[in-house]
Amino acid sequence: MGLIVQKYGGTSVANPERISNVANRVIATQKKGHDVVVVVSAMSGETNRLVALAEQFQKPPIAREFDVLLATGEQVTISLLSMALISKGQDARSYTGSQVHILTDSAHNKARILDIDDKRIHADLNEGRVVVVAGFQGADEYGNITTLGRGGSDTTAVALAAALKADECQIYTDVDGVYTTDPRIVPEARRMDKITFEEMLEMASLGAKVLQIRSVEFASKYNVPLRVLSSFTDIDAEPKGTLITTEDEIMEQAVISGIAFNKDEAKLTVLGVPDKPGIAYHILGDVADANIEVDMIVQNISEDSGHTDFTFTVHRNDFEKTQSIVKNCAEQLNAKGVVSDNNIVKLSLVGVGMRSHAGIASKMFQVLADENINIQMISTSEIKVSVVVDEKYLELGVRALHVAFDLAEDSAE
Amino acid sequence: MGLIVQKYGGTSVANPERISNVANRVIATQKKGHDVVVVVSAMSGETNRLVALAEQFQKPPIAREFDVLLATGEQVTISLLSMALISKGQDARSYTGSQVHILTDSAHNKARILDIDDKRIHADLNEGRVVVVAGFQGADEYGNITTLGRGGSDTTAVALAAALKADECQIYTDVDGVYTTDPRIVPEARRMDKITFEEMLEMASLGAKVLQIRSVEFASKYNVPLRVLSSFTDIDAEPKGTLITTEDEIMEQAVISGIAFNKDEAKLTVLGVPDKPGIAYHILGDVADANIEVDMIVQNISEDSGHTDFTFTVHRNDFEKTQSIVKNCAEQLNAKGVVSDNNIVKLSLVGVGMRSHAGIASKMFQVLADENINIQMISTSEIKVSVVVDEKYLELGVRALHVAFDLAEDSAE
Repeated sequence: MGLIVQKYGGTSVANPERISNVANRVIATQKKGHDVVVVVSAMSGETNRLVALAEQFQKPPIAREFDVLLATGEQVTISLLSMALISKGQDARSYTGSQVHILTDSAHNKARILDIDDKRIHADLNEGRVVVVAGFQGADEYGNITTLGRGGSDTTAVALAAALKADECQIYTDVDGVYTTDPRIVPEARRMDKITFEEMLEMASLGAKVLQIRSVEFASKYNVPLRVLSSFTDIDAEPKGTLITTEDEIMEQAVISGIAFNKDEAKLTVLGVPDKPGIAYHILGDVADANIEVDMIVQNISEDSGHTDFTFTVHRNDFEKTQSIVKNCAEQLNAKGVVSDNNIVKLSLVGVGMRSHAGIASKMFQVLADENINIQMISTSEIKVSVVVDEKYLELGVRALHVAFDLAEDSAE
Repeated sequence: MGLIVQKYGGTSVANPERISNVANRVIATQKKGHDVVVVVSAMSGETNRLVALAEQFQKPPIAREFDVLLATGEQVTISLLSMALISKGQDARSYTGSQVHILTDSAHNKARILDIDDKRIHADLNEGRVVVVAGFQGADEYGNITTLGRGGSDTTAVALAAALKADECQIYTDVDGVYTTDPRIVPEARRMDKITFEEMLEMASLGAKVLQIRSVEFASKYNVPLRVLSSFTDIDAEPKGTLITTEDEIMEQAVISGIAFNKDEAKLTVLGVPDKPGIAYHILGDVADANIEVDMIVQNISEDSGHTDFTFTVHRNDFEKTQSIVKNCAEQLNAKGVVSDNNIVKLSLVGVGMRSHAGIASKMFQVLADENINIQMISTSEIKVSVVVDEKYLELGVRALHVAFDLAEDSAE
């Protein structure tokens, strides 16, 4: 007997037949003795339809009114799923974000959840009902409808699980868990049974796009066990997927959990910059003013008299814009020049075990050297090592690392 | 300078182009110095789309969840109209029924408005905004979403006009007003400039389907001047249409305002019923138990010893069902038999002037007699006379009465 929050995304509720399948899955969970709260997204395609309507008037649409429009998408799904449940004999009630007082700030289109009132939901659960809540939406203190931005339904689910003190938050999607790396590149990639919040954050931000980062942060902050599973597996089987939880819950931790990669970045280097205070601020300030996000930043110790090379990466979409900003900046700073490259890939080893195991970085560099892969940038954190290499080495590098760190074997259990 | 509530139905907001036209009309009203509150329906076709989705699960759908679903239709329109207004430089804000606290009872799918909080709307109007409110919907005291049933957007508009003490409530539709009778039958039929609430109620319930009856009742109760106009006329012209208001406002009242007719009825007579207390209750009780609405009821004074004929009309859709109920009932009552006829039409003269003019009914009977039209049933109220005749006399009867009572001439002004 526990309380489970389940979240189903747009493809899982794409049409009445799939909504009916979701209802079966919810009822199966209830039959196991659990209370169930369900969070759903808009039926896939619906959000695009609404966006197209709005763009007949304004591009981008006025934020407040755009939220009023978009919020209808999930409202349709909650009513249909409740009808499906009721028609199958399971009492249910649907609620919009504002109806269960998902209080957010007033940042329309990208609001943040501040508070949730759990009274109404608990009252329904006590009556034996399944509670169906619209994901992605809330209301600010003045009652204006807000939306949480892309992937916001995951965040709604985790926030509800935290508010309700749920035993588990299950995110149903079209993949059956988090893998050691992308199975399209390494067929031997293994689904992880468990992974820590920190590792998941590193994996997610580096390109394993299974979960919305904000929802993982939220789950970590409020200690909500989070499970990623497929909504297309056998309904009666015990749910597996990947459990994302705290380090304490994972008994025997592997040194390395997985390998993430990101080929959406581009690299820029300002050569021969005078090595004095304020240089990094000068270059990155101009980039930030243009609303461009910077990922890795590396500055070498200056070798010759008072000059240094300054390198950073941005999203490829911002590459050309960043180039012109940096060229301007380099002239002002009397730098020797700018070199840039958008044929790069970032490979990252992620694992909390790194903390207690020395030599992970050097082993990684050796594996890449053995394959004649030249490393262009290095950046490390407590639980990851990232390198930038030529894009053509993506598959070779990931496969070599996957083998070298024994990720295909079931070492995590 | 006044406060105008305007309501636009589904065909007036059927697509982005028409929504843009509505925005122009709203802005033109504002430019004349008025504050404007707009009530809109769902885009035409949208409600049918939602009903079809719901019916994949249940028929009829669970009432509470059906309301959650249907309410999204108007929510889409309010956001799009607000975007259209803002994109044209007119500040605007959209509100769902629950956001402006349109408090209703909990009768899902056919809720009644109990109260409206006007504070938020007045605050926006004071800031120079147009306020756009979703028609047809509200929320009950527990925050559950409710809908008002067919034509509910008219009722929302009138209720808002009453709560805001608006100077006028304008219902935009695809006809340009209320006519003395159906112009398809009498080409000389004249648009009335003014008509009283009571007359409109009689006209509406008798088949002139321009306005939802409940909205007229509401307008009458709270004394809200109501104007019916076309949303397809010149935007800069002074709005004409038909003003529905109190008797005091109409200086020189014509004796007869209009002729209504209804060919959706069927007639049933129970012959030779013992004339004793409880008979009417016995027959109509069984009919009411089957949820069948009865319109006209006539019972003749019994001529022979203790027997009478009892006649009433129902909607044609209920004709066969009513026949079998009444036949059963007639046997139990030892009546002589049942005769029924669904080839009838009800013609009604409507006018508050009848109160002070004797002889209207007898003149009506004479006109019909002159055309050899046999009258089957008669029913009168303070401001109307209705007769049931053979359906084939519909056009002949209406035209003869229209001429005899000088309705084509502009006698109402």
